[in-house]
Amino acid sequence: MSIINTIYGNTEEGKEFLKGLQNREEAVHEEITQKVQVILKDIKENGDKALISYTNKFDSKNVNVKNILVTKEEIEKAYESVEKEFIDAINLAVENIKFFHEKQKRNSWMITKDKEVVLGQQVRPLEKVGVYVPGGTAAYPSSVLMNTIPAKVAGVRNITMVTPPLKDGSINPNILVAADIAGVDKIYKIGGAQAIAAMAFGTETVERVDKIVGPGNIYVAMAKKSVYGNVDIDMIAGPSEILVIADESANAKYIAADLMSQAEHDKLASSILITTSKELAKKVKEQLKIQVEKLSRKDIVLYSLKNYGAIILTDNMEQAIEISNNIAPEHLELCIKDPFLTLGDIKNAGSIFLGHFSPEPLGDYIAGPNHVLPTSGTARFFSPLSVDDFVKKSSFIRYSKEALLDVGDKIVKLAETEGLTAHANSIKVRMED
Amino acid sequence: MSIINTIYGNTEEGKEFLKGLQNREEAVHEEITQKVQVILKDIKENGDKALISYTNKFDSKNVNVKNILVTKEEIEKAYESVEKEFIDAINLAVENIKFFHEKQKRNSWMITKDKEVVLGQQVRPLEKVGVYVPGGTAAYPSSVLMNTIPAKVAGVRNITMVTPPLKDGSINPNILVAADIAGVDKIYKIGGAQAIAAMAFGTETVERVDKIVGPGNIYVAMAKKSVYGNVDIDMIAGPSEILVIADESANAKYIAADLMSQAEHDKLASSILITTSKELAKKVKEQLKIQVEKLSRKDIVLYSLKNYGAIILTDNMEQAIEISNNIAPEHLELCIKDPFLTLGDIKNAGSIFLGHFSPEPLGDYIAGPNHVLPTSGTARFFSPLSVDDFVKKSSFIRYSKEALLDVGDKIVKLAETEGLTAHANSIKVRMED
Repeated sequence: MSIINTIYGNTEEGKEFLKGLQNREEAVHEEITQKVQVILKDIKENGDKALISYTNKFDSKNVNVKNILVTKEEIEKAYESVEKEFIDAINLAVENIKFFHEKQKRNSWMITKDKEVVLGQQVRPLEKVGVYVPGGTAAYPSSVLMNTIPAKVAGVRNITMVTPPLKDGSINPNILVAADIAGVDKIYKIGGAQAIAAMAFGTETVERVDKIVGPGNIYVAMAKKSVYGNVDIDMIAGPSEILVIADESANAKYIAADLMSQAEHDKLASSILITTSKELAKKVKEQLKIQVEKLSRKDIVLYSLKNYGAIILTDNMEQAIEISNNIAPEHLELCIKDPFLTLGDIKNAGSIFLGHFSPEPLGDYIAGPNHVLPTSGTARFFSPLSVDDFVKKSSFIRYSKEALLDVGDKIVKLAETEGLTAHANSIKVRMED
Repeated sequence: MSIINTIYGNTEEGKEFLKGLQNREEAVHEEITQKVQVILKDIKENGDKALISYTNKFDSKNVNVKNILVTKEEIEKAYESVEKEFIDAINLAVENIKFFHEKQKRNSWMITKDKEVVLGQQVRPLEKVGVYVPGGTAAYPSSVLMNTIPAKVAGVRNITMVTPPLKDGSINPNILVAADIAGVDKIYKIGGAQAIAAMAFGTETVERVDKIVGPGNIYVAMAKKSVYGNVDIDMIAGPSEILVIADESANAKYIAADLMSQAEHDKLASSILITTSKELAKKVKEQLKIQVEKLSRKDIVLYSLKNYGAIILTDNMEQAIEISNNIAPEHLELCIKDPFLTLGDIKNAGSIFLGHFSPEPLGDYIAGPNHVLPTSGTARFFSPLSVDDFVKKSSFIRYSKEALLDVGDKIVKLAETEGLTAHANSIKVRMED
């Protein structure tokens, strides 16, 4: 049995595979939908009381209203229990993430026109942001940095983090240290749909926020979608993917390693190599077999490679790029000779990794661009998390009397065409004077 | 009985009123939710057949698969039946909207770092956008312009518009002309949840889009929220509002007219004046009574003024601004002496109108900034529709071998801390070589 399937891009089989990729969604049972709705309503109505009750039930019996907020002492203790090398690595990551996101900042602007007309756009940071951080095995300090730093760079002054406590009521120290270095203001020991509800509606203890970001399980994802409109949320995340486009210049060992770095995330993760080289395809398969033996998550890797992974052979590069654009991958590696020259042809991708020494984990941790990326083909319309996600804009308009009189008739005409006579009246009273 | 209530800002009554404002949402009955889900599923599974069937049922029996797409001839005929003055006004609006939105365009960018590191962000227009335009009495040509032009300016090459046909199978000619001038590529005679589903999933005739924008009734709004994630959508719109902050320099006649221009939209619309001047408050009340008699939508105006309108008296300007920031109004008029100096204090507002000759309808139709604005307090986190809403971004990363080796240990440390050994392996295979 093969570790990964090989498919020819321009065949029916190829098309079937690509279609299947889009249906990787986790099945949402009616039961889950209802449970989430009950939790949201309960928190909205009963605040802290409900919040503590769910936390005691699902996460830890040691959390109560008095210790739900992580203390300075807990953070200091966390620093003592993490490795110095970890802190060094986090510090480098923070520096690079800040550097990149600083370039995304935008100014307010204004323009003047004749007759004392001024138009403009004011850009302001959101006031309060909530960051959800999963607990347990998916407790990723890198995710704390990627969700928090763009908000800090945008100028958000009030960042609340929530994360489910361990059974003993504590929080993973790596998470606490990362949050502290990134500049989180408050950390609450809560998780699940109840934590999302607390941040969306507010409770006696937890302040309502303007936007909720961060990944979570199906309960968290559904709760976020439900409260969307009460607060803003980041994108809706689905199963993730890596797509590698490679030519004969590529290194099979590297590509195999990169495919598996995505495959280990999740049974639904998809790792795809598209290449014109049969020779490379063969070598990558060999390397997958060799390297998978070293991996702690071997079972997940094998499952996702087998079910959602593929090596797709194409006749030429154009075909490879077309398939990639249709998939709209979260991560795209261009392991080809002149990757910069291909950048312009890439229509849909979350993050693009150029050349043989820019593997996906470089972007996950250290390079600086955000690792929160549009998944499951949503790179067609969603973008990487950025400073833009933590600001709001207001437009402004200033007309003089003279300038208004110049266009008054036209406004009245449009308003009356639309049957909105009070709109027309607002202009007319000014024209009469 | 008073036409509008007067409230003192710093009283319990004031706080109660403000709280009530946030609960203006239209009640969504379980029944509607289920109907929308059935329609979405039906269109997804049965495509055109279901689409035509719903259109025949809800809108017009004269629409079939062959005439669902508006023809060139229909558009030419529309031009013949609209007034020249309407076309002139539309042309001026288009010119001004384009001018303003051009300033929002952003370039792709890249930065280089030592050791041949290149990082950047690519900005690209969405490929396909769908614009929903309501039919019947809410058929607003201005809304066609405001939803379409930012997409055109962003560079979107494929803009589909949908709008429910009249009973005879035709479309309002004003809408057709506005769509044609704005540069819509295709217009389909479909509406409701079925039109949203057609654009989100695609049918044999209607191509799937990447993003759906535009206002609609409760069925349309719920359908949009449901397909969010399959496609992107614009903001979730609720009942809208105007808030006027005025000092003794303001003109009561103008303010009364402006309050009613918002009040005529909808029974749930909210029109609020906040002022430090009792004298002005009194005069505005008188003007409301006089001017309302001239308005075609008098009943709606009176209803919304009575239920969701108010004149709020405050002790000083700081208090007025604080209340406004808490309401986060869709439209904010600063009818005060030096409005530019107050701009910096305005934290939350969709669009800000400065001075005595910048009434809201100026922004609705002609000035240039978008009239699609965050409603119901969502200006806390949502922004006016803009060119940003019609682009997607990709980040890109290029490291050299040397640069990667420099940071390799740190990436491995972070990956291993997170238990992701395949991530670490992707770096290690490159460090070994």
